[in-house]
Amino acid sequence: MTPRKLPATLRFMLAARRSELLGLEDLTRTCELVTKVSRLVHALQKERGYSNIYLSGSDPRRLQQLDTFSQDVDSAEREVREALEAMDLDSLHGGDKTRLYSRIAFALYSLDELPGLRRRIREQRIALADATAALVRLIGGLLAVVFEAADTAADPDITRALVALFNFMQGKELAGQERAAGVVGFAQGYFDAERVERLQQLIEGQERCFATFVRFASGEALTRWHALCDDSLSKQVAQFRDIALRTSAEAKVDQQLCELWFELQTRRIDAMKAVETQLEWDLLERCRQSMEQIRKELDSHRLLLDRLAELGTTSEQAKLFSVQARELDSPPADGMTDAVERSTLELLQLQTQRLQRVNDELKEARQALNERKLIERAKKLLMEQYDLSESQAHTRLRQAAMDQGLRLDDLAERLLASAAGNAPARPAPRPHGRR
Amino acid sequence: MTPRKLPATLRFMLAARRSELLGLEDLTRTCELVTKVSRLVHALQKERGYSNIYLSGSDPRRLQQLDTFSQDVDSAEREVREALEAMDLDSLHGGDKTRLYSRIAFALYSLDELPGLRRRIREQRIALADATAALVRLIGGLLAVVFEAADTAADPDITRALVALFNFMQGKELAGQERAAGVVGFAQGYFDAERVERLQQLIEGQERCFATFVRFASGEALTRWHALCDDSLSKQVAQFRDIALRTSAEAKVDQQLCELWFELQTRRIDAMKAVETQLEWDLLERCRQSMEQIRKELDSHRLLLDRLAELGTTSEQAKLFSVQARELDSPPADGMTDAVERSTLELLQLQTQRLQRVNDELKEARQALNERKLIERAKKLLMEQYDLSESQAHTRLRQAAMDQGLRLDDLAERLLASAAGNAPARPAPRPHGRR
Repeated sequence: MTPRKLPATLRFMLAARRSELLGLEDLTRTCELVTKVSRLVHALQKERGYSNIYLSGSDPRRLQQLDTFSQDVDSAEREVREALEAMDLDSLHGGDKTRLYSRIAFALYSLDELPGLRRRIREQRIALADATAALVRLIGGLLAVVFEAADTAADPDITRALVALFNFMQGKELAGQERAAGVVGFAQGYFDAERVERLQQLIEGQERCFATFVRFASGEALTRWHALCDDSLSKQVAQFRDIALRTSAEAKVDQQLCELWFELQTRRIDAMKAVETQLEWDLLERCRQSMEQIRKELDSHRLLLDRLAELGTTSEQAKLFSVQARELDSPPADGMTDAVERSTLELLQLQTQRLQRVNDELKEARQALNERKLIERAKKLLMEQYDLSESQAHTRLRQAAMDQGLRLDDLAERLLASAAGNAPARPAPRPHGRR
Repeated sequence: MTPRKLPATLRFMLAARRSELLGLEDLTRTCELVTKVSRLVHALQKERGYSNIYLSGSDPRRLQQLDTFSQDVDSAEREVREALEAMDLDSLHGGDKTRLYSRIAFALYSLDELPGLRRRIREQRIALADATAALVRLIGGLLAVVFEAADTAADPDITRALVALFNFMQGKELAGQERAAGVVGFAQGYFDAERVERLQQLIEGQERCFATFVRFASGEALTRWHALCDDSLSKQVAQFRDIALRTSAEAKVDQQLCELWFELQTRRIDAMKAVETQLEWDLLERCRQSMEQIRKELDSHRLLLDRLAELGTTSEQAKLFSVQARELDSPPADGMTDAVERSTLELLQLQTQRLQRVNDELKEARQALNERKLIERAKKLLMEQYDLSESQAHTRLRQAAMDQGLRLDDLAERLLASAAGNAPARPAPRPHGRR
């Protein structure tokens, strides 16, 4: 009995909001997975650290310690696998999960190599550098899952929270790699030119990641992070870095510093974990709030629909209403009908404005991820074209950016554009022709 | 019996491809809707044209003609509504339909105003300009659905086909508006400064749209388009345009030209419709091909899974296989197992590379849509800030772009960025500070 007009329009308005809600529920599940991945990454970083200590010293007491951390990894891995098992891969969700699922498949593939890797470590049948590299790859695969989750989220607030978390995790991972690099250098008593270079890159990388984290994080997590940066732990780490960078084959330091460095960096990384836990909590809280908000709005849309249905039951009103639907140019015979008409259009306009805002905010938040993608891809290009190590590629890219007074990501973009245009990719491309 | 490793990895690899397929099936349904919308737009353009003729002349024979075209619209509208009815809005599709559904709701809202509008036209209770404006808005709402479909499609080939179709439809719509503007001018015997300006904008707008169409279209549609551009119809339209632009209050032309202009432009628009139909066909063909391709790939993934399942049934092979899974560092005891291992990794790597390529291609195709979005938003900003008409805002934007030697979309981007930064938006912003 209700006129044809409003139901069809409202049906799609409701469907639009419902689609948003379903997307958000799905995103919330992805975020829960991300928090589990974050715990697994932390456990793997610990196992990597103690594997390095074990491989560099072969103290039998270390083995027991290592086993404990391996068990922590196993339990965190089980949680991740359970969350993955619980995902309904056969559901008809139309949302494009292609990239996320591919990243997960890659991470799983690497995770399955862990038992073999552990055996080789325990039997000391693997070089420290190779063991570290394998675990760096494994952790990198897990971080890629978090990156993809951030890059595909459709809610700006949640995207911001994911960008903050991803950058923090990445910064913490570089801190873990710095710990490992320091263990090797201090165990030898000094850092050669290549290791100094590597150490500097890891320190710079951390600074970049944490700067992005600071841009996107808020509240408690940020307060905790600033407190951590100001405390004595960070100052001691800075002193140790200075020592490391001043060593040479001629100016060795006591190898006992190795243990101290490791303990100090471990305490720093554990303190970071507290910030990370706060970020995880913030992320899930964001999901909860966004869902509550959208459910509320969906309810108010439903209220409107109900009002129309009510009108439809009274034949007098229904008649009035369908006259109104045909006689759009005549003045409304009933204030209520007119109000309903108007509020439909208002709701539509509000929704359009909101979607525009959401899109702008998403674009801004994803920009930080895009910069990272560009730099990684430019590095890879240089590695392939000039047969460089990642570290060498990074140095080359950074040097070229400094020479040309460009931001790293701007240089990376030009480099990739020039390569895509089939021109020979050069670390120092022309200053014009950005696209 | 199969080892734990490959199933979990493969399960997500398969899920990734399946997600792609589901997304594609959904996109195909959207494309089918788009082709129906395209037919409705064409019918509405015809109804608008004959409404204008009827309103400007009130020849009773014209009324009958108009009724026929209204019936064509009704039948095209029914088809669109049926397609919308058939859409399963309650399904658990996680894909974000928010923007698409919102656009559809808006279009439906406008469609429902059509009966009232028609009555006013028939009773000659509406000015020609207002009737045209209402129908321009309605068609604009339908075009926005096509735009959104293009902007949210996840397959680069289909996105390109949608970008081609959208720009062609938009160009044809501007041709329809040019026909209407010409009818008004020729009926009066001349074009004043404002109408000349408007006519020029509509001609330029068509050129921009068709240039983008040419960039993204291919094959038969392009051949037909070039043939249309070269034929006598296009030359005659060009002559008429010249005449129109040279008229003035002092140099009027015969009002009989009005009918000739209308007939000529109508033939041109009908010829465009043939190109558009080809584009629709291309679009659906693209969908079919992409689906076939992805189904094939999904089958090849399934084949791999089947091979693993086969291995699992023979206990000897299964044992061998699970040893293999644990002893990753030892040489493979069985060539086949090794081959399966390797092909999993290869498939994963191929998939990653392919996703990267897809992303790059999508980005490129969407760039054309983004340019349009920027220009539209900058125009709206100028209209609000300086209380301008759309036509005035366009003139101002174009003039500023010419003065500064910038592309229209680059200027629009700067303008919007400057407004977002709370600086006063100026049609001539600083040449630096793009972001």
